[in-house]
Amino acid sequence: MTTAQLADSAVSFGPAVALSCRECGARIPLGPHYVCVECFGPLEIAYDFHQPGRPAVTRELIESGPASIWRYAPLLPVPADVAAKPNLNPGWTRLVHARNLGRELGLRKLHIKDDTGNPTHSFKDRVVAIALEAARTFGFTTLSCSSTGNLAGAVCAAAARAGLRACVFIPAGLEQAKIVMAAVYGGELIAIDGTYDEVNRFCSELIGDEAGEGWGFVNVNLRPYYAEGSKTLAYEIAEQLGWKLPEQIVIPIASGSQLTKIDKGFKELIALGLVEDRPYKVFGAQANGCSPVSAAFKAGHDVVQPVRPDTIAKSLAIGNPADGPYVLDIARRTGGAVEDVTDAEVVDAIRLLARTEGVFAETAGGVTVGVLRKLVETGKLDPDAETVVINSGDGLKTLDAVADAGVTATIKPSLAAFHAARG
Amino acid sequence: MTTAQLADSAVSFGPAVALSCRECGARIPLGPHYVCVECFGPLEIAYDFHQPGRPAVTRELIESGPASIWRYAPLLPVPADVAAKPNLNPGWTRLVHARNLGRELGLRKLHIKDDTGNPTHSFKDRVVAIALEAARTFGFTTLSCSSTGNLAGAVCAAAARAGLRACVFIPAGLEQAKIVMAAVYGGELIAIDGTYDEVNRFCSELIGDEAGEGWGFVNVNLRPYYAEGSKTLAYEIAEQLGWKLPEQIVIPIASGSQLTKIDKGFKELIALGLVEDRPYKVFGAQANGCSPVSAAFKAGHDVVQPVRPDTIAKSLAIGNPADGPYVLDIARRTGGAVEDVTDAEVVDAIRLLARTEGVFAETAGGVTVGVLRKLVETGKLDPDAETVVINSGDGLKTLDAVADAGVTATIKPSLAAFHAARG
Ligand SMILES: [Zn+2]
Ligand SMILES: [Zn+2]
Repeated sequence: MTTAQLADSAVSFGPAVALSCRECGARIPLGPHYVCVECFGPLEIAYDFHQPGRPAVTRELIESGPASIWRYAPLLPVPADVAAKPNLNPGWTRLVHARNLGRELGLRKLHIKDDTGNPTHSFKDRVVAIALEAARTFGFTTLSCSSTGNLAGAVCAAAARAGLRACVFIPAGLEQAKIVMAAVYGGELIAIDGTYDEVNRFCSELIGDEAGEGWGFVNVNLRPYYAEGSKTLAYEIAEQLGWKLPEQIVIPIASGSQLTKIDKGFKELIALGLVEDRPYKVFGAQANGCSPVSAAFKAGHDVVQPVRPDTIAKSLAIGNPADGPYVLDIARRTGGAVEDVTDAEVVDAIRLLARTEGVFAETAGGVTVGVLRKLVETGKLDPDAETVVINSGDGLKTLDAVADAGVTATIKPSLAAFHAARG
Repeated sequence: MTTAQLADSAVSFGPAVALSCRECGARIPLGPHYVCVECFGPLEIAYDFHQPGRPAVTRELIESGPASIWRYAPLLPVPADVAAKPNLNPGWTRLVHARNLGRELGLRKLHIKDDTGNPTHSFKDRVVAIALEAARTFGFTTLSCSSTGNLAGAVCAAAARAGLRACVFIPAGLEQAKIVMAAVYGGELIAIDGTYDEVNRFCSELIGDEAGEGWGFVNVNLRPYYAEGSKTLAYEIAEQLGWKLPEQIVIPIASGSQLTKIDKGFKELIALGLVEDRPYKVFGAQANGCSPVSAAFKAGHDVVQPVRPDTIAKSLAIGNPADGPYVLDIARRTGGAVEDVTDAEVVDAIRLLARTEGVFAETAGGVTVGVLRKLVETGKLDPDAETVVINSGDGLKTLDAVADAGVTATIKPSLAAFHAARG
């Protein structure tokens, strides 16, 4: 970027002022960078929410904003006019007061943050919307990503609407629904023989290749911007609870980014005086067939040993989660935990959630609800505390998990046939 | 119902005051009735929006309401506290300013009302929410329906959340996604060997049978309440356009109820002074393989000749549409039209919408966008007029229509393989 472009960026990224290294604290100007040149640590966005000339961020300011993540634009690395540019306007999804599920599990105050209402029906629309805006600012003309499925759809849809090209990468063998929901938007969809972790490594290589010039990889070279999108889950939950933090929250772990950014969001709300400073416990959820963070938590380790995933929860199947160590730190610091459930428990939990609350979750939602149940049963969750569980994606994308849910009977159109069928 | 129950109903149905016959105008008290005893005409809800003691319905009152259809509770047959009762809180879905699609089609001001953001991803959540509330008031313990697919899912999900039993009826041979999305909520799902019209007739029989006692069939004995839910599409479109009516609107026709109620909603907004009284044209959209209303419109007939449906747009496959004559009347009165497109045009339109706006529609949405295109090409739509097209359901439910949308290539995780694949 030229100096002039960098100056523009200062305006284009709203309250964001720099990229800072999460390991050594080194700061560099905002740009399409993701690794610290000093220590190879991950870069994240640093803010100044009290810049002269910017309005104070108040509850009233936020409440007067649009019914999308852009109501929180003053807390995100985006310009003030971001909502006016072509994007999918994700977010402001339902917080469902889950009385029935709470009763079954023995939790007095349970809410489900249901992100299936997003445009492509997963929380990925949130992170992509921020990355898209950064891609525009940096002049990228192709939007790309490595994806376990949901992200591919979110990127291709957002690129279509924004008039960018899309070329996305997935591991071979994904669910049909996720493949179609990415391909239908007209971008290039490349399947790679390998795990997600291999797809991800390939994308890092591609950034250095001439073929990747002008490409914004939302979760690689745009990752610092992208990751901030998950903060909006924290903001929405707090606002929808009446401007207070939940006492306990159960969050799925893929790369671990969503969990760390929800924690960051809660801390920002406290620092800005938008919610009362009270303790909250963060719980992470994994599928047993890809549970490196849960294993490390239980073993008392600080580092995460990579695994080769084997689970029906494909959207969480990241064997080498980049934010694993940070997740361990947050779970321990807040008095939470990381837990995992089997694929059979995932399926049971999908059905339980559907039957009690009318919410149809994908396997990732089965993981969080399954872990929620296990945490109650093992006494790790306080049954009287305000609890939120995240449903990050839609059951229509992982139909095979509940494919035995079919018709009760097939009959002729007559009362006699109906009575006979019901016995 | 007892007299005491009827008195309760007067409170429970908010501004609604009676059931009135659409044919002869006869009035009866609000109850679980749907046919006029005088003339066998259909009953609909009659309102008094100016009852003493009720607050005036203003833009400000509505804007201060929840981000769901319940912001319009003062205009619906529901009690003021309806949002507090367990329901799916549907509605307040995105109105997408479709600049890219408009440019491709040659329409200067095009918006898509995208109802895929609803809890079960179709507009049916709107109508079911109203019927559910009526079912509760009448003391029904089972929620039922005849469905072409989307309604079954919406009913089963709503019943699960409300703690009612569900037993729903569909024609055999529906899409797998629609079957699973109904069955997963734990109700009874009965497939019937026959068309939707035969399923519907069977349900009318079942109401008179002892097996149907205590059952609320949302689109049969609760139909007058149910149908009012479609008015919320009209309200939302007008509010999201900045409190004005579109000049042209393209609406899918299944039974025709959605179209007639959107027209009713627009007229109410005018009568209440919430929008300026200006002319609008209503266009109806059908699939060629089930186009009895389009055929009648083109032939200049006032009645609709039933057909046996044969189209991939299964959610619109009603061969004997109850509201057909009213649709013809509205299209003619407003200067609109009814048009149909082939299945191939439906698929093209799904892809066009996805590619230009990042919106993935089910086949019904392909019908409306396909008809939109055809109406522009044949000069029936004014390219300069503010135009809205409805997308009533989600592409994930009719994946087969675009099943050839797959991966561009499958490669090894190497740059060499990537370059080779791209040629
Ligand atoms: Zn560093
Ligand atoms: Zn009558």
